[in-house]
Amino acid sequence: MNKETTLQRFRMYQRKIATQRYIGFLIGWDAATEAPRKSVQYRAQIQGDLAGEHFAYQMDPANIALLEEIAEGEFDAADQLSAKKYLKNINKIRYIPAEEYVQAARNRSIIARVWEEAKRCNDYASFAPHLERFLHDVKSSLSYRGVKDTEYFATLLDDNEEGMTIEKYNHFFTALKEELVPFTQDCLNNGRQIDDKALYLHVPRATQEAIVHYMVETLRFDLLSGVVKTSAHPFTTGSGSPTDVRFTVKYQDEYFPGAMMASLHEMGHALHSQQGNPAYAGTNLNGGPSAGIGESQSRFYENYIGRSQAFWQTHFPALQKFIPELYDLSPNDFWRMLNRSKAVLTRIEADELTYPLHIILRYEIERAIFAGEVKVKDLPELWNAKCADYLGIVPKTDTEGVLQDVHWGGNVGFGYFPTYALGTAYAAQFDRTLRQELDVDTLIRENKMEVVNSWLKDKIHFSCGLKTPEQILLEVTGEPFNVQYYLDYLKSKYRQIYFS
Amino acid sequence: MNKETTLQRFRMYQRKIATQRYIGFLIGWDAATEAPRKSVQYRAQIQGDLAGEHFAYQMDPANIALLEEIAEGEFDAADQLSAKKYLKNINKIRYIPAEEYVQAARNRSIIARVWEEAKRCNDYASFAPHLERFLHDVKSSLSYRGVKDTEYFATLLDDNEEGMTIEKYNHFFTALKEELVPFTQDCLNNGRQIDDKALYLHVPRATQEAIVHYMVETLRFDLLSGVVKTSAHPFTTGSGSPTDVRFTVKYQDEYFPGAMMASLHEMGHALHSQQGNPAYAGTNLNGGPSAGIGESQSRFYENYIGRSQAFWQTHFPALQKFIPELYDLSPNDFWRMLNRSKAVLTRIEADELTYPLHIILRYEIERAIFAGEVKVKDLPELWNAKCADYLGIVPKTDTEGVLQDVHWGGNVGFGYFPTYALGTAYAAQFDRTLRQELDVDTLIRENKMEVVNSWLKDKIHFSCGLKTPEQILLEVTGEPFNVQYYLDYLKSKYRQIYFS
Repeated sequence: MNKETTLQRFRMYQRKIATQRYIGFLIGWDAATEAPRKSVQYRAQIQGDLAGEHFAYQMDPANIALLEEIAEGEFDAADQLSAKKYLKNINKIRYIPAEEYVQAARNRSIIARVWEEAKRCNDYASFAPHLERFLHDVKSSLSYRGVKDTEYFATLLDDNEEGMTIEKYNHFFTALKEELVPFTQDCLNNGRQIDDKALYLHVPRATQEAIVHYMVETLRFDLLSGVVKTSAHPFTTGSGSPTDVRFTVKYQDEYFPGAMMASLHEMGHALHSQQGNPAYAGTNLNGGPSAGIGESQSRFYENYIGRSQAFWQTHFPALQKFIPELYDLSPNDFWRMLNRSKAVLTRIEADELTYPLHIILRYEIERAIFAGEVKVKDLPELWNAKCADYLGIVPKTDTEGVLQDVHWGGNVGFGYFPTYALGTAYAAQFDRTLRQELDVDTLIRENKMEVVNSWLKDKIHFSCGLKTPEQILLEVTGEPFNVQYYLDYLKSKYRQIYFS
Repeated sequence: MNKETTLQRFRMYQRKIATQRYIGFLIGWDAATEAPRKSVQYRAQIQGDLAGEHFAYQMDPANIALLEEIAEGEFDAADQLSAKKYLKNINKIRYIPAEEYVQAARNRSIIARVWEEAKRCNDYASFAPHLERFLHDVKSSLSYRGVKDTEYFATLLDDNEEGMTIEKYNHFFTALKEELVPFTQDCLNNGRQIDDKALYLHVPRATQEAIVHYMVETLRFDLLSGVVKTSAHPFTTGSGSPTDVRFTVKYQDEYFPGAMMASLHEMGHALHSQQGNPAYAGTNLNGGPSAGIGESQSRFYENYIGRSQAFWQTHFPALQKFIPELYDLSPNDFWRMLNRSKAVLTRIEADELTYPLHIILRYEIERAIFAGEVKVKDLPELWNAKCADYLGIVPKTDTEGVLQDVHWGGNVGFGYFPTYALGTAYAAQFDRTLRQELDVDTLIRENKMEVVNSWLKDKIHFSCGLKTPEQILLEVTGEPFNVQYYLDYLKSKYRQIYFS
């Protein structure tokens, strides 16, 4: 076959996969945000059938040969990378019997809604058998891949962030624990007392929506290429093109920072996608290079921008207009409250110092699951015990405990949680370089977030999936990943909060 | 092939088409309700590709042979009907070149959003070239079907309501005009004066949403199997299963009956779908038998229930709680206002007496379009002239004139409008039988709409697409369609409104 025909066929392949991906995106988005409850079974059948088609198309020997020809031939680097990425995914599922692949897709379609209901009704028992089945599907898929059962968790970690091993994560988390636990104790025992009860005001839903909209404008999320909505747990998704990127928040009547801060986090993901190179729309290069880099962007906007002193010195007056009860506070009071270190039950509401403990808890539980050290039915107990251990508090309900996160509900899966902590640490390294090159605080004060966005676009977002995390860190910051920037950032910030 | 294998293959065929249909439903729903504006082009490419797959699957000779085997063999009547319906659709598109079919789907994907924007911005000029292209696609598809250009419009009418011809519609509309125009004049000249300015109060969006929700509860629309949302023009759609049926309304700040009455209309469609036989979910028998029967259900709930005296004697106190400005009025005052006959520009806001004039206007314009008597660029002029003729008023903008309806924006198309009038007339005939069998007014007063729903379910909804409109009319009312019930209903109702 001549090169041009091969390329043409490859374009058709990309387009077909993009169409299948688009359908998956839209069904998932709809299911999580508004599809009616009784639609579950009908949709599960459809998602199963679609998974079957997707599988068959990927497994078609002619298509695999085409990808191999591109990957091994003399083609444009982006095309070769794209072909290799398709092949990599194919190799992950290649030996799963089609029937099982389809059944697993049906199961995932159902568990996602079961989790929602279980969380809503604090009913872990109804979720447990579905989680059992999901775990079975995940393990069996790994086993068809030739992964030994002792390597299940390591493989999942690598799938989510290539190159990250149990050893590396153990080392990373140990460093965090050793440095942050005593430091946090010092802040709490010897630093100023911070009363954050003003965060627990009742703020009506409509006001909170207006605040989220204000944040959308502040961060320059483009609503002509995006949608903001609500769901049981905040998430970001996209059509496969920068022209349609969507995120959700979840409103809590009695804790307004929840939706507000979630919007900043999710907008980090969403800006990452909106600022991608449109040339890669409809290919598997659209989006980012890895979960860790993805989380570095969400955590950057949430913490390094959204929990910064400059941000609240600038935007607190606007917040006071939305919530007049805050008029007695100064911007710095509010900034301290929002950053106060305090054990809370919900990961996405944790401050920056205790956040890693929430991740470590989940990491250890997942490791225990795959090591066969805990049964699904005993997860609530283990969760609560670890909560007591790490945070000194115990959830009163599974809704605020083991059921809180969307991940085990089928859509994200296992091995993802550690990338939140890793991404947060990446972000510290990016933030340091960014602040060497730009006066970020002044830009925040002058309401010029487009300049910060633009820097991130040039350095990280625009290249989509072309580079590896290592490459990006090296190119942007001049050195490989170094956890020290994260620790330095946290200590410097929290010294200011508690001791200045 | 043995019968069982054939049936099994037929089930797979139905399922595949249902999956393609589901995807079309969801993309269309998303596009009309929340997809961001810049997503148009990417989605159009995807909808084109999906149309290509849908086309190829339908045109596969093996699949056509399968359908013919079922249609002509000895199979269950429902399966045979289903196969015949698939074949009928296939025959409509069979000779269109695949490329053109795909391009037309892309065009439809785009024109729908262009129409929205054009309506929003009162910009007919931006819509006109897309309408031109849409018309071209419609005509060329008819031409591939072997339809002569003199028969285009007649064919579209038949497509929308089998058996209805230009002659029949001309006759129907002439009867309506001859009876209703002088009758309306008599009401307005000699009847009581009805001041309806209270309908034009400013009612906040949130209040209107609460009113729509009240109507949802009143009519027993099942939100566990349904969704209510907003769009540029109200519509109802569904997943292909009674477990997921969705409708929209459009809120107007200064005219609260708009969304309220639209919700009753759309819920008529939606209840029709929700009350269908779940055994036909995922087949082409799901839904109703025809556009006319469909509109008979929407217009039934909108007019025969929602504009009835009993309805407002029952529900006006609740409405007054939502809108305290209405406290000075009696239920009968409000009922009269809501029914007052008055020329308005917007079809879906018209009273029952002038409503047929809006349909006749559109019918005549469509007829003129296909007769080559008017160019697309001249449609606003013709629209306004006919408005002046029939209603004595002229739109100040195309937004409230030629651009008001969603239909020419690709998703509904030509030949549909007459089914609104026809359906309204069918509904009169159903209503008469219903009221002979049940004490509808008492049921309304006792808030027992489920009993009315149940009657309609048994008589009409549950049989889905199994029967023809003629069959249903005959079985339910004991006689063929008779326009006289409609005229009698209108005259009796309006005599009471204007002269009692």
